[in-house]
Amino acid sequence: MVRPGGRSARVQASVHTAVRELQTEVGRDALTVPLVAQRAGVTPSTIYRRWGDLKELLSDVAVERLRPDTAPKDHGDLSSDLAAWAEQFLDEMASPTGRGYIRDALLGDPDGSNAGQCSAYAVQQINVLLTRAADRGENTPDVETVVDRVVAPLMYRILFRPDGLDAEYARRLVKGVPARPTGR
Amino acid sequence: MVRPGGRSARVQASVHTAVRELQTEVGRDALTVPLVAQRAGVTPSTIYRRWGDLKELLSDVAVERLRPDTAPKDHGDLSSDLAAWAEQFLDEMASPTGRGYIRDALLGDPDGSNAGQCSAYAVQQINVLLTRAADRGENTPDVETVVDRVVAPLMYRILFRPDGLDAEYARRLVKGVPARPTGR
Repeated sequence: MVRPGGRSARVQASVHTAVRELQTEVGRDALTVPLVAQRAGVTPSTIYRRWGDLKELLSDVAVERLRPDTAPKDHGDLSSDLAAWAEQFLDEMASPTGRGYIRDALLGDPDGSNAGQCSAYAVQQINVLLTRAADRGENTPDVETVVDRVVAPLMYRILFRPDGLDAEYARRLVKGVPARPTGR
Repeated sequence: MVRPGGRSARVQASVHTAVRELQTEVGRDALTVPLVAQRAGVTPSTIYRRWGDLKELLSDVAVERLRPDTAPKDHGDLSSDLAAWAEQFLDEMASPTGRGYIRDALLGDPDGSNAGQCSAYAVQQINVLLTRAADRGENTPDVETVVDRVVAPLMYRILFRPDGLDAEYARRLVKGVPARPTGR
């Protein structure tokens, strides 16, 4: 319900910018609400009122940083598109920065909405690929099956079991996606 | 390298017990290192020296709580064993308590060893089922494939996409496990 360009939007933008700048300058662990408020030119109480605490603010910023800024590339067929998307997703999420954002998104997230948004971003990108494939006349699996077969194993291993995570593994996961809807 | 029953083991036991008791009595968010130290009868500096900070202590306690205390039941064949294990895993991990422990395990975990231990527990249980099946003369998939097809989707959805998580979904994931090694 935020009017674009309204005060609320300006506060959000300046606070998010302050967090990103300070994360680079002093590091995530040195961040405090007063430090962010000072840099953003707002009062600490503005931040506490809007975000609750630092964890929730960092979670908001993390989700914003995890939002894809471009549509996935078109490689001519679904399996190439999925393989390229999965490799890029792994690169971004498994990087130290990506892991940090995933952790932050999960932590300050009392109602799970930020984690849900991270998943929604992946589903949006995959839906672009599936729609493109359907427009080409290709058979396509359902998106939740792609989540189970590709997104979930990548995220699970990034968080819990990082050994052997590489592009070849991502491509193998994509090969395991059924070519048609599985009627789930 | 901790001598069982040695001072180090006694400190660990009393601190873990103090955390569990205080989590019940005052709730997780009210925990502080001095509060835990007082209850455990140690100095705060003992806790800081050994665990670093509260996050890392809570992560240790969470992993301990997530350790399976019994071998999975034998239902006579691998698919029944896996389905029953997956349903129980989902029940435990998707509960508010389970989610809290998973979050704590992930958070205070600078080197990822606690998250890795959570994954190792699941792999140990699945290996019990696979060995049992092999002893019966059944064909068995490799354990990493079971992780990709069953454990990863359950954990991913618990953390990022909880809608529609139920026993039927867990059973459907188990049906998707190949009957033989996939040569990954």
